[in-house]
Amino acid sequence: MTLTSTIDDLTARVESELRQIMAVRQMDLYRMMTYHLGWEDELGNEQGAVTRERNHGVACLTACSATGGDVDRALPAAAALELLISFCEIHDDVQGGQPQRGNRDAVWWVWGPAQAINAGDGMHALARLAIFMLQERGITPETTFRAVQMVDEASLDLCEGRFKDLEAQERIDLSVDAYLVMAEGKTGSLFSCAMKLGSLVADANDAAIESFGVCGAKLGLAVQVRRDLLELWGDGQNDTPPSPEVLNKKKLLPVVYTLSKATIKEKRRLGDVYFKRVLEPDDVVAVRQVLEEMGSREYCEDLIVRLRSEALEALDVPGISAEGATAVSAFADTLLGS
Amino acid sequence: MTLTSTIDDLTARVESELRQIMAVRQMDLYRMMTYHLGWEDELGNEQGAVTRERNHGVACLTACSATGGDVDRALPAAAALELLISFCEIHDDVQGGQPQRGNRDAVWWVWGPAQAINAGDGMHALARLAIFMLQERGITPETTFRAVQMVDEASLDLCEGRFKDLEAQERIDLSVDAYLVMAEGKTGSLFSCAMKLGSLVADANDAAIESFGVCGAKLGLAVQVRRDLLELWGDGQNDTPPSPEVLNKKKLLPVVYTLSKATIKEKRRLGDVYFKRVLEPDDVVAVRQVLEEMGSREYCEDLIVRLRSEALEALDVPGISAEGATAVSAFADTLLGS
Repeated sequence: MTLTSTIDDLTARVESELRQIMAVRQMDLYRMMTYHLGWEDELGNEQGAVTRERNHGVACLTACSATGGDVDRALPAAAALELLISFCEIHDDVQGGQPQRGNRDAVWWVWGPAQAINAGDGMHALARLAIFMLQERGITPETTFRAVQMVDEASLDLCEGRFKDLEAQERIDLSVDAYLVMAEGKTGSLFSCAMKLGSLVADANDAAIESFGVCGAKLGLAVQVRRDLLELWGDGQNDTPPSPEVLNKKKLLPVVYTLSKATIKEKRRLGDVYFKRVLEPDDVVAVRQVLEEMGSREYCEDLIVRLRSEALEALDVPGISAEGATAVSAFADTLLGS
Repeated sequence: MTLTSTIDDLTARVESELRQIMAVRQMDLYRMMTYHLGWEDELGNEQGAVTRERNHGVACLTACSATGGDVDRALPAAAALELLISFCEIHDDVQGGQPQRGNRDAVWWVWGPAQAINAGDGMHALARLAIFMLQERGITPETTFRAVQMVDEASLDLCEGRFKDLEAQERIDLSVDAYLVMAEGKTGSLFSCAMKLGSLVADANDAAIESFGVCGAKLGLAVQVRRDLLELWGDGQNDTPPSPEVLNKKKLLPVVYTLSKATIKEKRRLGDVYFKRVLEPDDVVAVRQVLEEMGSREYCEDLIVRLRSEALEALDVPGISAEGATAVSAFADTLLGS
């Protein structure tokens, strides 16, 4: 079995666990959720089998198996993490007024913002109920209890990160450090929680669990930086249409970095376009050019490489096998597209 | 100590527990929450000491004491319930586009809908973390665990109720039964959870806990029916300005009841005003008149009395003292303004 097929296999298991959780929920509230999960169209018709990323669930299972655990027993935790990230995505789309997620209409665009808020709240509650199902897989009440608490703490970190993210949109003076704190809350906290949960369920020692917490936080941060790069440059072609996030003037790391390094003259050049009330696609080309000249793209790419190494170095503790670390490394490659 | 002073005393204890929980949270995310709780104005200045209702917390403590428990040990659960209801209120105001809550600006009106969604999500997570603090009051991990699970199940029931409530606004054919199911989810589930939690923490037997679940659900439903009456008739004067909920044509029970009983002619008379695109204050006077003629006000008042009796009858099981039932009865009086 190749490492890639292992990730495909783990993805399929998370998917099947999610389907089991949703299968018993029949009222219309849950239709918004199954739509968001990609299984149905807006009319409730089955969608063809599309393989979706279930990175948070896979992160959990990878950490579980790297510490000698049985991934089947960790499945409720993996599914809970996917429900949590879905809850965030549904609310994020309402908050940002984004009508699309991927190449589909966002939940709020189909059902309206009020019901989308309910769908997100419901997934938040469902995520926690999923965690309790660990007990049905032979996980002790004590461990399940610790798992629930980990999820709650991560949920709060996540809210804090999302709060800072929205707040940053109103500011021009965001420092790189403040960005990193915000992004670690917004994207790092769930990956950190995912890997901690996986190793917790595997009965790993506390040092290994904490190491996976560090590893997940760093990988999550790297994911966010990579996402910011993709928002700005897409697949690397200069004629890629700009992402709505760019047009919304979200504080993406390349922009934050450039503003922190720029002279007044360069700031003005960037500001002339970036702080217009409405950005046109042509302005984005000009923004990209300034960002490249200031070396922000290179800075972000280097940062991703560094975070990836630090994430893996964190795993050099007793209780995590070399084979386990290799599996995490393969997962990091998939996650970071390297 | 009179029964009223007991409720005041319990309210003060819930309030002080809530303040302790929030005191350790310092970032701006939490300022939206302390604003919603009524402690600060929008600039972060302390508000004068206003006594607010903490009915969910008091319901929990009343059930605890009625089953022989020590209310101090139940305080984290009582506070968690108040955080949960606050989470719902903050999201409800965004969902309904209500700029005011009581006589203050709603959180979303001050900070915008996106941050208000975060504030609600954060309170949802905080509520659960509060429950874990039961262990610091000597509650066993097993009981705490059951408490967390009860809260999660209630949260999901709540979402289902809120989903149905929003869905009902789009329909004209809501039956009285469908209304009752919706209102029990929306308002009954948290009161039910509150009373179950209070008796659980008091180590009551399962029959007593279930009885409190029934009692709370019925009292919560009665609260909702009473709220609907107040929305329509205010303090009983015909010149009370109509509530925004009426102008939003929310499906209030007197309207649902009238539509279910009305002949085609009467329906048309009501429909002529109620289904106009925008209701004017004068239309509300006409609506009130039709509702009164159809006996819907009397029906609702009778229903409240019946629900109140059924709630108290449910407590006639071993483990709940006559004195305890009397305290619940006094609480019901406060809750239902009778």
